[in-house]
Amino acid sequence: MSAALIVGAGDATGGAIARAFAREGYTACVNRRARNVAQLETLVQSIEAEGFAAKAYPGDARLEEDVTAMVDAIERDVGPINVAVFNIGANVNFSILETTAQVYRKVWEMAAFAGFLMGREVAKRMVTRGHGTIIFTGATASLRGGKGFSAFSGAKGALRMLAQSMARELGPQNIHVAHVVIDGGIDTEFIRGLRADFDEAKALDKVLSPDAIAAQYVVLHKQHRSAWTHELDLRPWAETF
Amino acid sequence: MSAALIVGAGDATGGAIARAFAREGYTACVNRRARNVAQLETLVQSIEAEGFAAKAYPGDARLEEDVTAMVDAIERDVGPINVAVFNIGANVNFSILETTAQVYRKVWEMAAFAGFLMGREVAKRMVTRGHGTIIFTGATASLRGGKGFSAFSGAKGALRMLAQSMARELGPQNIHVAHVVIDGGIDTEFIRGLRADFDEAKALDKVLSPDAIAAQYVVLHKQHRSAWTHELDLRPWAETF
Amino acid sequence: MSAALIVGAGDATGGAIARAFAREGYTACVNRRARNVAQLETLVQSIEAEGFAAKAYPGDARLEEDVTAMVDAIERDVGPINVAVFNIGANVNFSILETTAQVYRKVWEMAAFAGFLMGREVAKRMVTRGHGTIIFTGATASLRGGKGFSAFSGAKGALRMLAQSMARELGPQNIHVAHVVIDGGIDTEFIRGLRADFDEAKALDKVLSPDAIAAQYVVLHKQHRSAWTHELDLRPWAETF
Amino acid sequence: MSAALIVGAGDATGGAIARAFAREGYTACVNRRARNVAQLETLVQSIEAEGFAAKAYPGDARLEEDVTAMVDAIERDVGPINVAVFNIGANVNFSILETTAQVYRKVWEMAAFAGFLMGREVAKRMVTRGHGTIIFTGATASLRGGKGFSAFSGAKGALRMLAQSMARELGPQNIHVAHVVIDGGIDTEFIRGLRADFDEAKALDKVLSPDAIAAQYVVLHKQHRSAWTHELDLRPWAETF
Repeated sequence: MSAALIVGAGDATGGAIARAFAREGYTACVNRRARNVAQLETLVQSIEAEGFAAKAYPGDARLEEDVTAMVDAIERDVGPINVAVFNIGANVNFSILETTAQVYRKVWEMAAFAGFLMGREVAKRMVTRGHGTIIFTGATASLRGGKGFSAFSGAKGALRMLAQSMARELGPQNIHVAHVVIDGGIDTEFIRGLRADFDEAKALDKVLSPDAIAAQYVVLHKQHRSAWTHELDLRPWAETF
Repeated sequence: MSAALIVGAGDATGGAIARAFAREGYTACVNRRARNVAQLETLVQSIEAEGFAAKAYPGDARLEEDVTAMVDAIERDVGPINVAVFNIGANVNFSILETTAQVYRKVWEMAAFAGFLMGREVAKRMVTRGHGTIIFTGATASLRGGKGFSAFSGAKGALRMLAQSMARELGPQNIHVAHVVIDGGIDTEFIRGLRADFDEAKALDKVLSPDAIAAQYVVLHKQHRSAWTHELDLRPWAETF
Repeated sequence: MSAALIVGAGDATGGAIARAFAREGYTACVNRRARNVAQLETLVQSIEAEGFAAKAYPGDARLEEDVTAMVDAIERDVGPINVAVFNIGANVNFSILETTAQVYRKVWEMAAFAGFLMGREVAKRMVTRGHGTIIFTGATASLRGGKGFSAFSGAKGALRMLAQSMARELGPQNIHVAHVVIDGGIDTEFIRGLRADFDEAKALDKVLSPDAIAAQYVVLHKQHRSAWTHELDLRPWAETF
Repeated sequence: MSAALIVGAGDATGGAIARAFAREGYTACVNRRARNVAQLETLVQSIEAEGFAAKAYPGDARLEEDVTAMVDAIERDVGPINVAVFNIGANVNFSILETTAQVYRKVWEMAAFAGFLMGREVAKRMVTRGHGTIIFTGATASLRGGKGFSAFSGAKGALRMLAQSMARELGPQNIHVAHVVIDGGIDTEFIRGLRADFDEAKALDKVLSPDAIAAQYVVLHKQHRSAWTHELDLRPWAETF
């Protein structure tokens, strides 16, 4: 059986992406930190309840040994990883004057370094087999800095450069590397808490639906290789940009 | 019945886009200049032979009266234009020193001004109805100038700015405006003539398949409005970028 | 004697650029439409009153014959054009639905086509001599479209692509082509009329000083050719971007 | 007396920038790692031999305590840091498959994290005083990824996002933050070793002159605050881009 790895399957988006690839016939191998293993199990069970395959791989994506062990275990126990999605966010906002070295480093480790580790490890296997898809989740901060976003946009900018570098190196080896710029609030518990108008916004499709996002990840994976997309944006119809 | 308008249905890409929307249930209303009406009729017949609906609207897309009359006629005879695609290219390469004023102007009229005319005319109807999709075909030259590309990249850059301006104005009115950057040679008679290695390149999916391009235009049109794409690139897996 | 041509010397910026190059020892050859010849003469006189050289060349920069005749006349009467600055703006804002074909075309003719004509004609002479500087004035709309900016950003985007194409072609022929993105209100009568807080903004350097802009054009022209700038932005310290 | 801090004064570019600001009347406070303290002293002596002021501050710019101590020492011993330049490069090229976690992290620490530490520490002082200039040295890899550049472009992309974020936050506090994209080989011993045609290229100004680069850094610092540049590129006239 063939595996789809989703690193950062901790939120609504990662969960929806996992479910979407499971529905396509992949075993959704879902990763998030071990301390949240309960939610990971809930996700696996909800996918299995639909009749599809999923498996939890808790671990710290910032640690090389965890990532290597996870990729080895999936390839051994489930099968070849034909799709890998990196979906860890780390959105923080601090004045540059109040950004601690610890925060700056941790945001980079979560949103960029972990992406490098996942990308490299799955690329090693995909190159040998001569095919595969790797998708990185980006944000508006991937494209430009902003007040308070020194740490977050630095990490997202680094991840975007990783995606471009990998696409230019691995495309000619038949590995499809894509970067998705998500611009706008997503329908999650986190955003619900931030927006007083959440229910109205959601009713009007003004917050991104995780399932709609996930559908585009599947589209990317299934594109004919004569017409691959490296980068696209996703935003609600009413969003200012 | 609902119409899909394809302006610049003269080449393989425009034809494939017309066919793809016809298969989705739209009457493909195809436009190119009157002097090529025979090819337009051939396209219509080939779509009809598959059991789908199409109609030829020959006319000069650079002339305001032609565009206005065409849009009026389609809305009267076929039905509301729910999708409009602008697909006229005008790829020329001349040293700046040898670019005539006539060439510079004509390339802009074909690749930018005609796009403005189509975009405005269909937007007027779509805004009234509160929905619709408008897609512009771009190229690498949409993003940057290059030696010999003063005229072509000027026109494509202007078209991209049109697409962005329309997206920012019309998105909040529920009109989806998208811009597709096609980067690489397409499987057409024109490219076949330019590349000695064409057959091998095509066999290896190294030239863009018009049907693969068209499939993405349909994807764009069908995106859930909570997650619209404004811009994406399409290029063959082996293409350098 | 050596000439500096400023096309679009009709506003405060063009005037300041002309004056700055005159102070560097060039004869400032200033162009704007014939119907504003009085202001052009006033500019020439104010430069001459400082003890520097200037000459008025009224004409319509959108007309190939006017541009050709002007460049011929300057080279014959004044001397080689070693610097040429294109500074015509055409900032309009209309809903796409209300942008007439006439407006869309006229804005392009003023802000892009005229730039092409000037650029090509001076490049022909500079290439023969093996050196020269050509500077195009851009705006935020050169970089992205916006609501109401279909016409203006289309023209400015085309001008930027022209500047890039010319730089890539002519740089290796020792012609320095640069594009300056001016982002923010300039200290002009026009802006004074638009902003209630103008005097306070000006006192705090929150509007761009034409002389400060002009100083950077001179810097560009004088850069050592091992370190040329193709594009830079200029904006007031307090401007949001 | 007023200080100009140059972090990464280890190469020809950093040295030329230090000298240029010393000539403007600043005490050039130059930093590089302690193991290269001899070269740092040579630089200081050569500036002093010209009759200008300089002082060596060896230390590891990746260590928060070193950066904090250095900034404290300069402000105490020399005077307020009115200009700070971050000039550490870390150009490496490895296949993504062969990029070790150690390399990926180290390149980021040198080229991005150290820039954050310097930027934040000097910004704290400048904000209190209400003025100052901070300049970051970028590269082509700051703008886009490329084959083999996962680590380097990731770090440079992060640094560019830092510069943008700081500019947007600190500009309105009268701190000028700029980012210089250097595109091309610089006249250094390192490049001399790489290019067989170095002497000819240098004679023809086809490699960037460190003094020409430094001159632009001084221009940036002296710009009138009504017309600040955030980003510019510098490349030799003959360079392909």
